[in-house]
Amino acid sequence: MRQSKRGQVEPFLAMDVMRLAAEAEAAGRDIVHMEVGQPATPAPAAARARLAQALEQEAMGYTVALGLPELRAGIAALYKRWYGVDLDPARVVITSGSSGAFLLAFTALFDAGDKVGLGAPGYPSYRQILKGLSIEPVSIPTEVQNRYQPTPSEIPDDLAGLIVASPGNPSGTMLGAEELEALMTHCAARDIAFVSDEIYHGLQYDTRAVSALEISDDVFVINSFSKYFSMTGWRVGWMVVPESHLRTIERLAQHMFICAPHASQIAALGALESLDEMEQNRAAYAQNRAMMLEELPKMGFSRIAPPDGAFYIYADVSTLTEDSAAFAAEILASAGVAVTPGRDFDAERGATTIRLSYAQSPERIAEGLKRLAAFMAAR
Amino acid sequence: MRQSKRGQVEPFLAMDVMRLAAEAEAAGRDIVHMEVGQPATPAPAAARARLAQALEQEAMGYTVALGLPELRAGIAALYKRWYGVDLDPARVVITSGSSGAFLLAFTALFDAGDKVGLGAPGYPSYRQILKGLSIEPVSIPTEVQNRYQPTPSEIPDDLAGLIVASPGNPSGTMLGAEELEALMTHCAARDIAFVSDEIYHGLQYDTRAVSALEISDDVFVINSFSKYFSMTGWRVGWMVVPESHLRTIERLAQHMFICAPHASQIAALGALESLDEMEQNRAAYAQNRAMMLEELPKMGFSRIAPPDGAFYIYADVSTLTEDSAAFAAEILASAGVAVTPGRDFDAERGATTIRLSYAQSPERIAEGLKRLAAFMAAR
Repeated sequence: MRQSKRGQVEPFLAMDVMRLAAEAEAAGRDIVHMEVGQPATPAPAAARARLAQALEQEAMGYTVALGLPELRAGIAALYKRWYGVDLDPARVVITSGSSGAFLLAFTALFDAGDKVGLGAPGYPSYRQILKGLSIEPVSIPTEVQNRYQPTPSEIPDDLAGLIVASPGNPSGTMLGAEELEALMTHCAARDIAFVSDEIYHGLQYDTRAVSALEISDDVFVINSFSKYFSMTGWRVGWMVVPESHLRTIERLAQHMFICAPHASQIAALGALESLDEMEQNRAAYAQNRAMMLEELPKMGFSRIAPPDGAFYIYADVSTLTEDSAAFAAEILASAGVAVTPGRDFDAERGATTIRLSYAQSPERIAEGLKRLAAFMAAR
Repeated sequence: MRQSKRGQVEPFLAMDVMRLAAEAEAAGRDIVHMEVGQPATPAPAAARARLAQALEQEAMGYTVALGLPELRAGIAALYKRWYGVDLDPARVVITSGSSGAFLLAFTALFDAGDKVGLGAPGYPSYRQILKGLSIEPVSIPTEVQNRYQPTPSEIPDDLAGLIVASPGNPSGTMLGAEELEALMTHCAARDIAFVSDEIYHGLQYDTRAVSALEISDDVFVINSFSKYFSMTGWRVGWMVVPESHLRTIERLAQHMFICAPHASQIAALGALESLDEMEQNRAAYAQNRAMMLEELPKMGFSRIAPPDGAFYIYADVSTLTEDSAAFAAEILASAGVAVTPGRDFDAERGATTIRLSYAQSPERIAEGLKRLAAFMAAR
């Protein structure tokens, strides 16, 4: 049977690492997971309790396409709390994870053949979703001295859109308010739609992340309950859209998704009441991050991006290897620690980088660091 | 900010009826819902029990992109039970509802500008999802004497794909094995990819629905836990794909969805063990259907499609009105019964058709029919 050209996207190489790690575990080995982009913790207790109650009391059919009104209002209130921004709940769209938000945003904004810019290194699925929608991804190589974020002078004028993530994945680096505003002003002047991926907001350690909504309403802001709220598998996220695009997004959501999972929306209502529990998770990540920053340079991983947020360390290992995939495989086989090679995030330069996640418990991260130190000492 | 051309899809007009019905209820009126395409029943008890247990015991992070292996195996076993088909579980892909399956299938099969045929009347979202993906939907007007299903001679040769639904929505009509095979053979000879929407399978009343998988493996078969298993809001469905397309679909699913909702996948495992409860639901629908077929012709709705399956009656009301939307609004206002005007399903001929759903309880359907009869008698 026929296959489309646009369907021929790249695989997620991190999945190969995860498969190898799972195979090692199946063979009886203990593996420390520094490859996964998700918390080891479950959804917050209040989220699970709220759903358990609903399971007994509600039919949970389709919700309206834009999501439960109470959840949209709760998210709007979060913008007041986190950023001091007054946000009309009508502009909040509940989505099937941030993945669903990207599908909706890209379809509403871009036609086939349009060019959309994205910094490298970056989350690989932006590029592959764009390709699947017949949109041309344009890679913008970023520099460590710019915190691996694009700057206005690097943005081609012929773009229809720009995707920016702060904190970034894999880098964990953030854009300051001035840098973010400079990018947004530059794009607005050139009719380049600005898409701000804020999925790691809340997970910051020194200074707080700035939302694009603090700067302008003329922006698509994408976020999710996956990371800070520890609900990856629930596939519930949100998007804040300009009022001008609400009706378009509503129609597309009706047809492309009908609605985000109802049960997950109910659990998310409980998550919004769990900020204390989330701050405990963040304190554990902060402890992990401090251990990483203390130990990694000692063992030879000294060239790392400024780890402002998220739960990643992105390390330049060009002095250690020219093949980060082989290097990651060696670490897994010898040390029993799974890490992600950089190729997923940066096709050109990822052969000499790796990403280490610290989303597991402090005990496991300490164990992983001990093993990595022994591996590097024996190398 | 810019808007794409392809994002300007049609609204789902049924939503307007639902909004009017909700407003009437908010104002204190009792409304019988014959407009909704979903069961009034919740997810099966075993599905809810299984999830309640998992909420206490599992972290429920991401699943692998193709879904829980146990669920894929359970669905493969269903094909043996329902159709006598031996199906490799590796070919079963768990999706975020049938909506997610359509997004994956269309992206894997068709490039921007390709033409895809679909019968009218039909499910409106096929057309709008295709448009959102820059694929050109080609309407094939079908005839009641062909059970509102397309025939080989009506299929343009320049199509890249054909979507067929049996039982159909809004018609409820089914394709027999011979008719289905004739369509599939015709398409295979012309490299027209065949997509079989089987979401209403299991909901049949005289003869059983035939799966395209009984005829050929070279087909995309799409189904869901929404209808027969009464799990609309859970957004969990599945797709059976040719082995040649598995790797493409896996990559696309990794990037476009990461995975279907984990909690819904666990609930679906319980649903597969609930066939007795599902058969009780079907018995209620059968009772509703019998009431509909008895009462509707008496009150003047005599031109209806052969209601082989699903939970819909599609009525030609051209002797009663030339504006089915106004007619539906009049029925809602006067009789307190919500029905769906045909325009969503057939842009050309839907002005003189309505769809009546009988997915509610027999008591409510009896009440609705009583009100409709009084309305028609007074007209």
